[in-house]
Parts: sequence; structure tokens; C-alpha cells
Amino acid sequence: MKDSIKRFQVEKVSPQGREEEETFIISERPVTLFLNEKEVVTLLATPENLKELAVGFMLSEGWLQEDKPPKRVEVHPEGVVRVWVNARHPWAEKFFLKRTITSGCGRGTIFYNVLDSLGAKKIRSAAKIPRERVVLLMQELNRRSVLYRQSGAVHGAALADGQKILVSCEDIGRHNAVDKVLGAAFLQGFSSSGKVLLTTGRVSSEILVKAIKRRIPFLFSYSGPTDLAVNMARQVGITLVGYIRGPRMRVYSQGARLQP
Amino acid sequence: MKDSIKRFQVEKVSPQGREEEETFIISERPVTLFLNEKEVVTLLATPENLKELAVGFMLSEGWLQEDKPPKRVEVHPEGVVRVWVNARHPWAEKFFLKRTITSGCGRGTIFYNVLDSLGAKKIRSAAKIPRERVVLLMQELNRRSVLYRQSGAVHGAALADGQKILVSCEDIGRHNAVDKVLGAAFLQGFSSSGKVLLTTGRVSSEILVKAIKRRIPFLFSYSGPTDLAVNMARQVGITLVGYIRGPRMRVYSQGARLQP
Repeated sequence: MKDSIKRFQVEKVSPQGREEEETFIISERPVTLFLNEKEVVTLLATPENLKELAVGFMLSEGWLQEDKPPKRVEVHPEGVVRVWVNARHPWAEKFFLKRTITSGCGRGTIFYNVLDSLGAKKIRSAAKIPRERVVLLMQELNRRSVLYRQSGAVHGAALADGQKILVSCEDIGRHNAVDKVLGAAFLQGFSSSGKVLLTTGRVSSEILVKAIKRRIPFLFSYSGPTDLAVNMARQVGITLVGYIRGPRMRVYSQGARLQP
Repeated sequence: MKDSIKRFQVEKVSPQGREEEETFIISERPVTLFLNEKEVVTLLATPENLKELAVGFMLSEGWLQEDKPPKRVEVHPEGVVRVWVNARHPWAEKFFLKRTITSGCGRGTIFYNVLDSLGAKKIRSAAKIPRERVVLLMQELNRRSVLYRQSGAVHGAALADGQKILVSCEDIGRHNAVDKVLGAAFLQGFSSSGKVLLTTGRVSSEILVKAIKRRIPFLFSYSGPTDLAVNMARQVGITLVGYIRGPRMRVYSQGARLQP
């Protein structure tokens, strides 16, 4: 926590005048990921849950698979995470042949993966969640958003079952926050398949793809989606709910999984 | 505009019950950039001002230079922008040798460029802006945020002189919105150097780097910065103001350029 937030003296201006004020600002650090000794990407992230971030990012990119845990994961204090997998697996070979172009906030070639994912079969889930539970889960995510309350400018994400939040993380980047919770679930030994993904951030196609890849049937956001995300959610069968604010929300797809 | 927003039927839930409602959702489309026939990156962006986006992105990445306009820019309706530069320039050669790893929302190797930029000389500007003008400029940006008012989930950015906004753009991505205004300035033939950059989005190190590269001494945001962005602004001498909401704001660096 102490590394995730820094104290700064700033000047606060209001109609009452100007004053020096101590404020808390969220930390952003470069985090370089290595896979089997090969440098693969540098992320800019809030420096907590870096092991979860590395593993979740590699899961989202398809470099790790849920049934094949990494051999070893090492977090180095200077912002380096080293992950080793059994390189004899065909999927690992495939990765090492592939040119690495990173994804981002509307930046990267992940869209090609999006199209692959759309070829994926429908996410079938008979699970139902009462609408009041949607409200309560989002409230619980907000309660857990400690860094956000202290500093603003932070995104939160969580994985929940139909009842409660199982794990939650925060980061300056909405992609990072989601990858951290997916990585946390993996490292804690439970599958994110069939669960509920909550985020405070906008739902772009890249966030939706993360849910599709993990076979997550529920995606709830405090914020709004893009048209591409809505179309993908409808196509693949994800219950996408946005603008969850107090008792209000908008249901974009698969509302039949929500109960009165 | 009509391509930037789509109509959707969604289910609106409130304490008063459930109803079908028509709503507007922001568009997200893959936009693939080519430089001298070579495919360089695919961005996910709101499909307006794509010429500006392509040129601004290439400026930010250092593939275009302000004093060397591209030979030709073509926007194709399927989401492809082709840019041609004179490849005999040494900076173009350098680009073609460089491995292309894209930047993003905390994703990418742009941080290495950040370090380069920090080696850059201080941004010296004797310009001063009254604090009331900061408020007015941010109000004007909000007034111009047409897509945001219709759909939410959109970021706005603008370039201003000390008096008024010169150009403004919107996009689902905060990086894209900033690149669009930088590209627009370039295409309209005025330099962004010495100007004011306004954004509704969070100020991460990557946004600050865009300002440093264009020699912009004022960076104003509706939202908050990261610690890395604040430290960089202090080091290089950018007046960074955040959380500009009504008459309130926080000044993170170089407050001497703001007048009562």
C-alpha cells in the first residue's frame, strides 16, 4: 500500500483562495515482464499485486493457460516479474514464434484476438443473479476501493460468485485492474469461469475479450460500454450491465440472467 | 458523427421498475495505420477524425516530425489510414529499423521513450494564464464534448492558446483524444508548442510525454495525475493542473505561470 500512494504538497485553489495542501497521489511504475528469460512487455502499473498482474496479463494474452500453472513466478523489487512456463507445451511454442505487439487502451493488435474470440462458442450459464445483488456487489467493490478513496484516478476490479466478492484489486489502468483479479484467482487456485467480473471502468472490446477468454458470464460496470463491447456481449452471451449507480443500472445483453 | 454513436435498445432498471429504452452508445472500431506501405499498428478508436488520429499518433511516437509534413495521408472507409513520409530522412530510417511495440493505457514500452524525454531540456515559457481562464477553458471543453453528453464513456481533449480553444476532439480512449488534437493542429498548420493541452482524462506519464514532446507548457485536466506524471511535470517545467471542477482545481507544478 505505501508504495501505491505517495504524499505530495500541492496548491489547492477554491473560491475561498489558495492554500498549500498535502494530498495523496496514485503511483505509476514501469513493470517489465519476462517469460522464460525473454523480455515480453513493459506495463505501467500501480506497484501492488505485481505477481497477480503478470500472471493475469499472460492469461489474458493467451501465454498462460488455466490448467497449466507456471513453473515459477518471481517478483523483483525494481519492477521486474519473471515467469517460467514449460516451454515444451505447444501453446508456449506458439507464443515464442509470435511477434509480440502489446495491447492497451485502444492500442495494439489485440483486436485480431477479439475476432478469434468471437469465433468462440457461446458462454452458456444457467446461473441467475437478483438485481439487488448486482447493486450490493458494486457497493462492495466501491467499499474495497481504498486507493481510489485516498487518491482518485484509480480503477477497481473484482471477481465474485453470485453471493460475494472473492478477490478485488486496484490499478491506475482499468486493463491492469482486471488482469490483477484474473491473476489473483488463478494464483489462489480457483477458476474465474462462471464467475462475475466487476469493474469501475469503461467496458471496451478489450475488457470484454478478457471476460470471454475466461468464460465469465456476468460483467458489471460502474461505467459504460462501447458499441463493439455490447455487440460482442450479445453475440457470445454475456450478461453486460453498465452504469450501476445506487439502485439504477442499464442492462445491455442477456438480461434474462437477472432476477427481480 | 453518425458513425461515432450508435442507437441501442437497452433495459433501464430503477427503483420505479424496468423499461426498454433507446440509448446512445459510443462507437469503437479498429483503425489500422500504415506508414509507407508498412502496417504499423491497429488502434481501437471512435471513428471520427481518423486522419488527425493517425498523424497525431505518429507525431507522439516520433515517426513524424513537426517540420516535415507527410507526403500524403489517405483515410479508407474500412478503418485504414495510410501515411507516406519521405523515407530518405534519417528519422524515418530510424523508425523503420526500430522494432514496433505499441503504447497504450499502461501497456507498452513507451516508458523507455519517457526516459529519453526526461533527458530533454526544460520547457521554458514566460506565458501566464489567469486562474479564471483555466476554469473557462475547461468549461468550454465540456461544452464541446458532444459525444460525451450523448453517450458517456468518452474522453475529450483540446488545444488552446491563452484565450480560447483552437481545436477539440473526442474518443473512447484518452490517449486517442489527445493524439487527435495534436494531429489536428499539425494538419491545420499550427504548432502545438507553447499551447495549452486540455483533457478530461487521467494524466498518466504517457499523456505527460505527449505534452513534453510537443513542448506544451500547460496541461489541464478534469481528472487527476499519477505520481510519475507529477514528478515529470516538475522536472521538465510543465504547469500541471488537475481536478478542475467549477472554480476548484489542484496545481501540481509550476503554479507561478498561473495568475490570480
